[in-house]
Amino acid sequence: PLLKAADAIPAAGPARLSEAEMQTAAWIREHALSDNRSYEILESLTTEVGARLAGSEADLRAVAWAEAKMRALGLDKVWKEPVQYPVWQRLSELASVISPYPHRLQVTALGHSVSTPEGGVQADIVRVASLQDLKNTDPAKVHGKIVFIDHKLKKSADYGEVAAGRSRGASEAARKGALALVIRSVGTDSHRLPHTGVMHYDDDAPRIAAAAISNPDADLLVRMLDRGEPVRLDLRIQTAMGGHFTSYNVIGELRGSEQPDDYVLIGGHLDSWDLGTGAVDDGAGCAITLGAAEFLRRHQLRPRRSIRVVLYANEEQGLIGGRAYHTAHRHEISRIQAASEADSGQGPVKMLRSDVRPAALAVVGQIQQVLTGLGVNAGGNQAHPGPDMGVLREAGAASFSLDMQADDYFDLHHTADDTFDKIDPARLRQSCAAFAVFAWMAAQSPVDFGSGDALIQSRKTRTAG
Amino acid sequence: PLLKAADAIPAAGPARLSEAEMQTAAWIREHALSDNRSYEILESLTTEVGARLAGSEADLRAVAWAEAKMRALGLDKVWKEPVQYPVWQRLSELASVISPYPHRLQVTALGHSVSTPEGGVQADIVRVASLQDLKNTDPAKVHGKIVFIDHKLKKSADYGEVAAGRSRGASEAARKGALALVIRSVGTDSHRLPHTGVMHYDDDAPRIAAAAISNPDADLLVRMLDRGEPVRLDLRIQTAMGGHFTSYNVIGELRGSEQPDDYVLIGGHLDSWDLGTGAVDDGAGCAITLGAAEFLRRHQLRPRRSIRVVLYANEEQGLIGGRAYHTAHRHEISRIQAASEADSGQGPVKMLRSDVRPAALAVVGQIQQVLTGLGVNAGGNQAHPGPDMGVLREAGAASFSLDMQADDYFDLHHTADDTFDKIDPARLRQSCAAFAVFAWMAAQSPVDFGSGDALIQSRKTRTAG
Ligand SMILES: [Zn+2]
Ligand SMILES: [Zn+2]
Ligand SMILES: [Zn+2]
Ligand SMILES: [Zn+2]
Repeated sequence: PLLKAADAIPAAGPARLSEAEMQTAAWIREHALSDNRSYEILESLTTEVGARLAGSEADLRAVAWAEAKMRALGLDKVWKEPVQYPVWQRLSELASVISPYPHRLQVTALGHSVSTPEGGVQADIVRVASLQDLKNTDPAKVHGKIVFIDHKLKKSADYGEVAAGRSRGASEAARKGALALVIRSVGTDSHRLPHTGVMHYDDDAPRIAAAAISNPDADLLVRMLDRGEPVRLDLRIQTAMGGHFTSYNVIGELRGSEQPDDYVLIGGHLDSWDLGTGAVDDGAGCAITLGAAEFLRRHQLRPRRSIRVVLYANEEQGLIGGRAYHTAHRHEISRIQAASEADSGQGPVKMLRSDVRPAALAVVGQIQQVLTGLGVNAGGNQAHPGPDMGVLREAGAASFSLDMQADDYFDLHHTADDTFDKIDPARLRQSCAAFAVFAWMAAQSPVDFGSGDALIQSRKTRTAG
Repeated sequence: PLLKAADAIPAAGPARLSEAEMQTAAWIREHALSDNRSYEILESLTTEVGARLAGSEADLRAVAWAEAKMRALGLDKVWKEPVQYPVWQRLSELASVISPYPHRLQVTALGHSVSTPEGGVQADIVRVASLQDLKNTDPAKVHGKIVFIDHKLKKSADYGEVAAGRSRGASEAARKGALALVIRSVGTDSHRLPHTGVMHYDDDAPRIAAAAISNPDADLLVRMLDRGEPVRLDLRIQTAMGGHFTSYNVIGELRGSEQPDDYVLIGGHLDSWDLGTGAVDDGAGCAITLGAAEFLRRHQLRPRRSIRVVLYANEEQGLIGGRAYHTAHRHEISRIQAASEADSGQGPVKMLRSDVRPAALAVVGQIQQVLTGLGVNAGGNQAHPGPDMGVLREAGAASFSLDMQADDYFDLHHTADDTFDKIDPARLRQSCAAFAVFAWMAAQSPVDFGSGDALIQSRKTRTAG
């Protein structure tokens, strides 16, 4: 598959990849599709590191693993950049129904939740259907109670709306005098495995404990409430917050042959929640993108620009690694040819969306053409590059989204069940093939994708149009 | 659907149910199939009682629920019979991998397990593929280690063989000098929810702690062992055994119109494990059989013989309710027209098997004929009536098995996930319809099914033949 220099000369007309380059891209697609390296990388991460809560001792074990793995995989350049954040610790969590019928519930503290007061909270619950419903509820109904947000996640597309109750419910409830918040897990499954996730306190509200119960436990509370009797809970959450921690974004690069300081940025986040071993969130994203870069290296497919893989620190507790990367690299936005993070599970990739200047759309069409062979549909020129790269997009980075099949992602997301056995190697291979094709073609492109202020301006036109 | 007396006179030839009786049975089938009472009973049990470990305070709450429910459902006669057993308590359980890679495991103590010694057990694991493999293993390999029985349950039919490792593994390992037993959960799922279940100690072996880890955790240990390095666990199990407890078999009867002291015996076990709320094991069996009796009562379908529903105490820890029932009723075996327990989940019923004298086979054929309309196949004249009724069969009771679809039963069995949300009302309705048809036709039969010594003799012939 090695390119001859003559083949790489662009044809006349709008800047496009050559026929030989298109054939190379198709070769990448077909061969990456039968390459298991991503699966092996994910097996290694989930087995040899496992759960890797940001700020825990496992956080630094994950960093050491990532650096060693990138070196072992032979990337041209491997380094790390410091990222700092406070440490949140889960200590213990218990929830039970006291009356009318005693039951032990499966519960998990939300990330950044404070503890319940000494002796826990014992109070009746008040059910609300959503964060919006809570906002509309008379404070007199909530005062002295435990608010129960009973917002079921029915499909992946609703995640943002439903997760708002997890992030913002506690302060909303506390302003109305609630003693604690319990939410129905933000997950599409029906297992006794609660879904954790980060929450935020507003400065103007008392800080009350916030926890999620599993979907079957939420169903149980609803059945009790349907009988018209008060339902009283005992909630005991112990957590700790404090101390500053230094972790790292771990970065590896396949150096470009002609413009090595320009780069295509791919990656995932290295941290996970503590309950599972972070296989789909986001070991998969790390393995897919690292596997894509390693595949190109192994086959000496070095494109014009560099391909940079960033495994971000602490995405889960506030996109902290992503913000640190932006801070460290904010003067080189125009060097980012394209940014695309993988943080939606194992795939397969179903749609390609871009966010590039018009002159680059012909090349995007060529990428799309090659990806069509993987069952990837065209999604137009509106894209978000993923959580950690969002701040780069704000700063003008040309962005891509390789949208993944999401039907089972929120079954596992942020639960103890997010483990390696859930990974289908064929799905991971397809995703790795899609990222390898995208990264290589974007890095090889004869045309710049347009990162910079002009792109920010053009988005406004596109949004208006 | 009321029978006229004239219709009930059997036709000439071998004793058979009349055409009118066959029509009544078909009416029962069709109407029970759209009746949700079993689902309501199960909703009540799992919501208002929940987990009901034998010997816990919930055990007696379940008994009170059952007695009150049978009375509320209007059965003719409701009573309870004492059952005694020692109390086993689960106090705490922790397992983690110490090396080569630290991981927290999802673990549950097996029922009747002793505690680990003060400070827990820290030792390398020795993997064996099965109880048989353990028996064949050199004691020198096991001495001072934690035995890990890695026997995956791939299909329901293998349950007995695989569960033998759970029941007998600890003593087998202890005789070879092992410090503790950890088994791969006996379950067909891949969730981080370990499956508990009872185990037994032999008198000639030291008593060592026994616990089950979830299937994904067992997969993790296997991946570590595959690297060829020693895998060291820390296991900390705290349990308690002692004190005698009195619970009850709760019994309700629809009295027969002609031979009320003869009866068809149906039922399930009222106790459950403590992790879930015992929805499929065996709330479903209780609800299906109680719902069948209540359906017949509500429609004034009173057969010749009585229909007796027994909700057994403490099946899980050694068929103790079943043995107590046998002891109390051992002189009336010949009065049991037929015995059939429901303890395989929510259904649907897929096959009918009988264990009756030859003269009754014509009526069994008629039952089969009606059940064919529910998709129930014929399974021949060899049957076991279920765990609690097994001892009655030994004593000569004519037995039936309404075999249920079992493809997902061992996903949930003995885990925290055995909860009401897993119940499909349509599956429960079919099972209830099958039990209502079977119980009514067996109780109405013009011919006795042959419980007694002659039946025991005839089994030998059938087995030999
Ligand atoms: Zn993520
Ligand atoms: Zn996440
Ligand atoms: Zn059972
Ligand atoms: Zn059981």
